[in-house]
Amino acid sequence: MTNAVDEAKQPALAPPGLEGVAVAETTIGDVRGEEGFFHYRGYNATILAAECSFEQVWYLLIQGELPDPEQTRKFRQETAQLRTLPDQVLRLLPEIARIDPFAPLDALRTALSLAASALGLQPIMDISADEVRHQAVRMTALVPVLLTGLYRAHQGLEPVAADPDLDFAASYLQMLTGERPDQEHARAVEKYLILTMDHGFNASTFTARVIASTGADMGSALVGAIGALSGPLHGGAPSRALHTLDEIGTEDRAYDYLREKVMSGERLMGFGHRVYKTDDPRSTLLREVALELGGDQAVFAQHVEETALRVLNELKPGRRLYTNVEFYAGVVMNTAGIPRDMFTPTFASSRMVGWTAAICEQASHNRLIRPSAIYVGPEAPRPLPDGYRYV
Amino acid sequence: MTNAVDEAKQPALAPPGLEGVAVAETTIGDVRGEEGFFHYRGYNATILAAECSFEQVWYLLIQGELPDPEQTRKFRQETAQLRTLPDQVLRLLPEIARIDPFAPLDALRTALSLAASALGLQPIMDISADEVRHQAVRMTALVPVLLTGLYRAHQGLEPVAADPDLDFAASYLQMLTGERPDQEHARAVEKYLILTMDHGFNASTFTARVIASTGADMGSALVGAIGALSGPLHGGAPSRALHTLDEIGTEDRAYDYLREKVMSGERLMGFGHRVYKTDDPRSTLLREVALELGGDQAVFAQHVEETALRVLNELKPGRRLYTNVEFYAGVVMNTAGIPRDMFTPTFASSRMVGWTAAICEQASHNRLIRPSAIYVGPEAPRPLPDGYRYV
Repeated sequence: MTNAVDEAKQPALAPPGLEGVAVAETTIGDVRGEEGFFHYRGYNATILAAECSFEQVWYLLIQGELPDPEQTRKFRQETAQLRTLPDQVLRLLPEIARIDPFAPLDALRTALSLAASALGLQPIMDISADEVRHQAVRMTALVPVLLTGLYRAHQGLEPVAADPDLDFAASYLQMLTGERPDQEHARAVEKYLILTMDHGFNASTFTARVIASTGADMGSALVGAIGALSGPLHGGAPSRALHTLDEIGTEDRAYDYLREKVMSGERLMGFGHRVYKTDDPRSTLLREVALELGGDQAVFAQHVEETALRVLNELKPGRRLYTNVEFYAGVVMNTAGIPRDMFTPTFASSRMVGWTAAICEQASHNRLIRPSAIYVGPEAPRPLPDGYRYV
Repeated sequence: MTNAVDEAKQPALAPPGLEGVAVAETTIGDVRGEEGFFHYRGYNATILAAECSFEQVWYLLIQGELPDPEQTRKFRQETAQLRTLPDQVLRLLPEIARIDPFAPLDALRTALSLAASALGLQPIMDISADEVRHQAVRMTALVPVLLTGLYRAHQGLEPVAADPDLDFAASYLQMLTGERPDQEHARAVEKYLILTMDHGFNASTFTARVIASTGADMGSALVGAIGALSGPLHGGAPSRALHTLDEIGTEDRAYDYLREKVMSGERLMGFGHRVYKTDDPRSTLLREVALELGGDQAVFAQHVEETALRVLNELKPGRRLYTNVEFYAGVVMNTAGIPRDMFTPTFASSRMVGWTAAICEQASHNRLIRPSAIYVGPEAPRPLPDGYRYV
């Protein structure tokens, strides 16, 4: 038997990493990197962040259109009621948080898997589109409760019950710290959360779609997405940029520090993005937000940013490199009182909106995502080695 | 601003579900559906199942070549020692198993996520290829311990410690039932497990690769794969075919039952496969295994199979439809004493070998898998509705 037939039929290999290969049509949003622009359902995402509440944009992504004031009030009320956990899950959070070393995103992966089971989520292919959307909202509302419960348990603290009068962002801060948050802090975090709800067809969103395409339950798809988000290549670790600021320490050290980094070929954390060839639009808005919030760190960050761009211009003239979303996101979250190891988990809590919207979309026009691979190993079939025996 | 630039650059949409699109090169194995043949690293998988032990084929998939007797003995010894759980995980299994309704595959998803945290698995991009392979073996060895612990806890029973003298398949049965298994049963299950270790680039294997491509830890990739396997479209639910046998009940009812099913257009569970246009090679071997094991069910299943093919030939002449892996797999597992709700989890325990081999391969030539989507929603950017305000 030869491979001739199969070889003739083998498809050409897609570009590595499927880069530039469109695998789906979507109405959720898009990133237009050359234009420094990204949108949700056609609306510029930075304008949404500046002008709308988390709930308004969440509704937009899940339902397809912006809600009117009455729909917003209803949605706000409905989602505030969903900030509760099944007892079985609440009871186990301290046990999950006790795993040493504590990694909040991994703990979320476990806790969300457990919560999906406790809620008895059925395969999305066995339920209606309305029920899929309902579960999408339920799971997104649940994540801040899981995250803050895990974080506080790890600190040896009791969970804080959600205040139904607070909106998503303020409620998250309240459950995290146990205190009613400053309004400016809550609004700054809200803008960050809106900006990070979705960002085109990123690796975690694609993971959620692949799992959803098997018809699995929403919990399975989300657990996979969290796993993908935890990968260092996914991008998005706002604490890294803050670490750079810490290392620099004072304004007068910035120039030498950055020059040395760039000359040694090290990557500058907080700079550069795979897609944007201009300012990252998220960064531009978050710079404004950070400066409005006030505090020395924002001013210092701006000094470092300007110095870094000057250094890059001196050492790599012609190469355009801009701050990315990480740079000011860390400053905003830090100023608002979010602990550093909760930065990426906080990002996960807003990206839940994009993941669940993608799962809803996949469920509504489903087809199993099952590409193929080209076998390049030893010629098949090969016989077992002479005299090879069961051991 | 118009979309003209981006539209001109938009890639053509890949076929739905990426069907027939090769996204990677692999040396792990392949399915040649037209020939009714699949292989692991070039060796016909049914010959491997008939001639080799689970450990020999496991080693082949993870290390790339079949082990010699000395390597097999060492690997068997090494993997037998890995059938233990971190204390924190062992303690929580009863809590996870208490979630009602008990769904063993979902419980495995939670427990494996927890175990990965407790073992402190690092991102695969931060560790050596040897360490990735070590973790691959560790996690595969762990799954039967998790599954049997969860299943027994759900029954209110204590876990059974693994007997290091038993091999993978026999040990699984022993931990499940608490009794040293009959050798014929263990060998039959071993053949089933070898046959289901891998099967080309299926949806769960692809999921594991997508997550691994972000550089995430092995636990994240495996949790996603388990999620994908739980999807009804992934295929593989050997209990469904057994359910058909139950419904038929007796040989004399087979013809009428099957005729009615086919005439009403219902799908016959246990028949047909997306890839194979011939006998599913797994089914052929499992039929033999089932008949060798003896028992009324195997003979009954064979009668039903023959009747079904006759009915299909009468009602849909010219349409070729064959039994798939589910049909006799259920009979084999049932005869060997595996409870029905553990069929798919048992499949997961062997597919771990394929998933972890894929993760190792992805880690060794990594590139982020990040395809794109084509935006087909409302034209972007669109302005916010007139007078739209923050609520």
